[in-house]
Amino acid sequence: MQSFDLLNHPHRRFNALTGEWVLVSPHRAKRPWQGAEEIIDHQQLPEHDPECYLCPGNPRINGEQNPHYSEPFVFTNDFSALLPDTPHAIKNGDPLFRVESAQGVSRVICFSPDHSKTLPQLSLNAIRAVINVWQQQLNELGKRYPWVQIFENKGAAMGCSNPHPHGQVWANSFIPNEVMNEDHQQLDYYNKTHSPLLWDYVHKELAQQTRIVIETQYWVALVPWWAVWPFETLLIPKEKIMRLTELNAEQRDDLANALKKLTCRYDNLFQCSFPYSMGWHGAPFVEGNTEHWQLHAHFYPPLLRSATVRKFMVGYEMLAEGQRDLTPEQAAERLRAVSDYHYREQK
Amino acid sequence: MQSFDLLNHPHRRFNALTGEWVLVSPHRAKRPWQGAEEIIDHQQLPEHDPECYLCPGNPRINGEQNPHYSEPFVFTNDFSALLPDTPHAIKNGDPLFRVESAQGVSRVICFSPDHSKTLPQLSLNAIRAVINVWQQQLNELGKRYPWVQIFENKGAAMGCSNPHPHGQVWANSFIPNEVMNEDHQQLDYYNKTHSPLLWDYVHKELAQQTRIVIETQYWVALVPWWAVWPFETLLIPKEKIMRLTELNAEQRDDLANALKKLTCRYDNLFQCSFPYSMGWHGAPFVEGNTEHWQLHAHFYPPLLRSATVRKFMVGYEMLAEGQRDLTPEQAAERLRAVSDYHYREQK
Ligand SMILES: O=P(O)(O)O[C@H]1O[C@H](CO)[C@@H](O)[C@H](O)[C@H]1O
Ligand SMILES: O=P(O)(O)O[C@H]1O[C@H](CO)[C@@H](O)[C@H](O)[C@H]1O
Repeated sequence: MQSFDLLNHPHRRFNALTGEWVLVSPHRAKRPWQGAEEIIDHQQLPEHDPECYLCPGNPRINGEQNPHYSEPFVFTNDFSALLPDTPHAIKNGDPLFRVESAQGVSRVICFSPDHSKTLPQLSLNAIRAVINVWQQQLNELGKRYPWVQIFENKGAAMGCSNPHPHGQVWANSFIPNEVMNEDHQQLDYYNKTHSPLLWDYVHKELAQQTRIVIETQYWVALVPWWAVWPFETLLIPKEKIMRLTELNAEQRDDLANALKKLTCRYDNLFQCSFPYSMGWHGAPFVEGNTEHWQLHAHFYPPLLRSATVRKFMVGYEMLAEGQRDLTPEQAAERLRAVSDYHYREQK
Repeated sequence: MQSFDLLNHPHRRFNALTGEWVLVSPHRAKRPWQGAEEIIDHQQLPEHDPECYLCPGNPRINGEQNPHYSEPFVFTNDFSALLPDTPHAIKNGDPLFRVESAQGVSRVICFSPDHSKTLPQLSLNAIRAVINVWQQQLNELGKRYPWVQIFENKGAAMGCSNPHPHGQVWANSFIPNEVMNEDHQQLDYYNKTHSPLLWDYVHKELAQQTRIVIETQYWVALVPWWAVWPFETLLIPKEKIMRLTELNAEQRDDLANALKKLTCRYDNLFQCSFPYSMGWHGAPFVEGNTEHWQLHAHFYPPLLRSATVRKFMVGYEMLAEGQRDLTPEQAAERLRAVSDYHYREQK
């Protein structure tokens, strides 16, 4: 019998950060695709779109007018999933029908006044301004809420309803599922080793070099050992840092640099505006020890083989567990093989 | 201050079956949609499509020819995610890089020779034949594998690459994540109450009547208290049954009836072939006690407001937790309000 090898044999990998497994089927990457294809929009957008409710000076859906902003602009979501003043629920006691009321805030962050540009196309200064706003939002909302989720849905494939570069912040009166899982796994590891899980992890990855996509002075982006999405990455600082709010000016500058390099590689991979959902995880704003936490951003991009063919997380994935075809090592290699200079600017 | 009410206030509900929470934002159902829309295909398909690799007598991708089948036809997936003879992996011992080799089988089940029909449009006899095949597959593969996942991806929105009515069976040498969670939760409840969680649950739902969609002699379909997808349902037998293989002839007949009613309501809701992923969960094929298990099928349909507007599980949902706009009670009411007789046959 042949001996097992990661590159050719179906296997499962364990996600040490969430405690879940992923099924990897490397031999399957060659299957033909006959299903739905995404639409690519190669149209050059205008810098200002009079129909866009996020552009400076334009009216929003609720009738308010956006200021003529030149820096990132933050406003409360006109259709917030969470509201600050929800009354508290009475516990009904039945374990099969548990409910709790939820308080929170949802805000939109317009990254730039320029309607035509996405994150990888913004200048380092403009990306730096977005990072500053993320920090401000966390500082402000972290005083009132234990969890503040910063995220970006980019592209129609990721449910984004407007191409104007923007992200969101949802503050929560509770710790959401995914964060609970990460907290549990990191705490468990810390109790055993006295070292933060992701800090150990990033240094082991740096030693191995097989899944690294970019490395800057303070930051590393890599395709994690346990990636589920085809070109999923984790962006992690090399130093022990629990929260985005702790980053100093140098680390923020370098983060702008790392974000630009990573998102340029994404766009360059299939020469399109690469869709993804991304977001930040750091220590929740709770009393007590959170030293087991290491700050990180997840990028979850759906594309698999081209600008139009995506991975669907459906049947087996919803009912059983995540499944991927190409290996994380292959994905990292492909992301390393493209330039970190944006293809639209390469002339 | 107003008192909390489920119909108007953001809240979280606990999924007793998996141990995860879902955020419900009932006030948000009115937000306008400006994002991507699905394509609806109202085209009447032919009963036999010479280009279809699942139709009787046609060649498949690997060159084999399908038999001229008239009953459901099962074959091994030409691009199986799992293979029976994968060599075993050596444990490397590092908790951050855990891996195990995976063995298994992936098969395709063509539900009917008729290319033009989906499950709700098949006769009760034809649906009954599919149920028999599900049972046979479980009986056969359950002897060799601890987990056998039966599922169907329906519609292009759910990654289905061919409209020919078909489902899949993936047998696994391991117990996947989602099943592990359900096992854990059900066992925990059983240890406390000596009654299966979902059996208690379905009878409490029958008493409340607010989330029931259909009820037949042996079966109930309901929008669970903790539904994440807009029109998600659970299909559960009213009697204590651990596995699909235990169903007797009467229960199978009635299951055909329940499946037809439920899927007709789905199609009738937005007058389209309603996309979904569905699949069966029952006690794994392991030694020892599995009395805490109750058989059930999950239906995860993505459509939200119309045949073209779906719910996207993206940013917040991927990074924090599942979120829905309309309440499960509203979803159940809408599914009850439509006929269980298929709209295409209503003339
Ligand atoms: O096996 P199929 O139908 O080609 O593929 C579909 O279902 C599989 C099982 O849920 C998924 O892994 C694929 O992403 C999806 O496109
Ligand atoms: O808030 P948006 O951009 O309108 O909506 C998008 O992101 C939200 C947060 O991930 C999701 O709940 C929605 O399904 C998605 O369409």
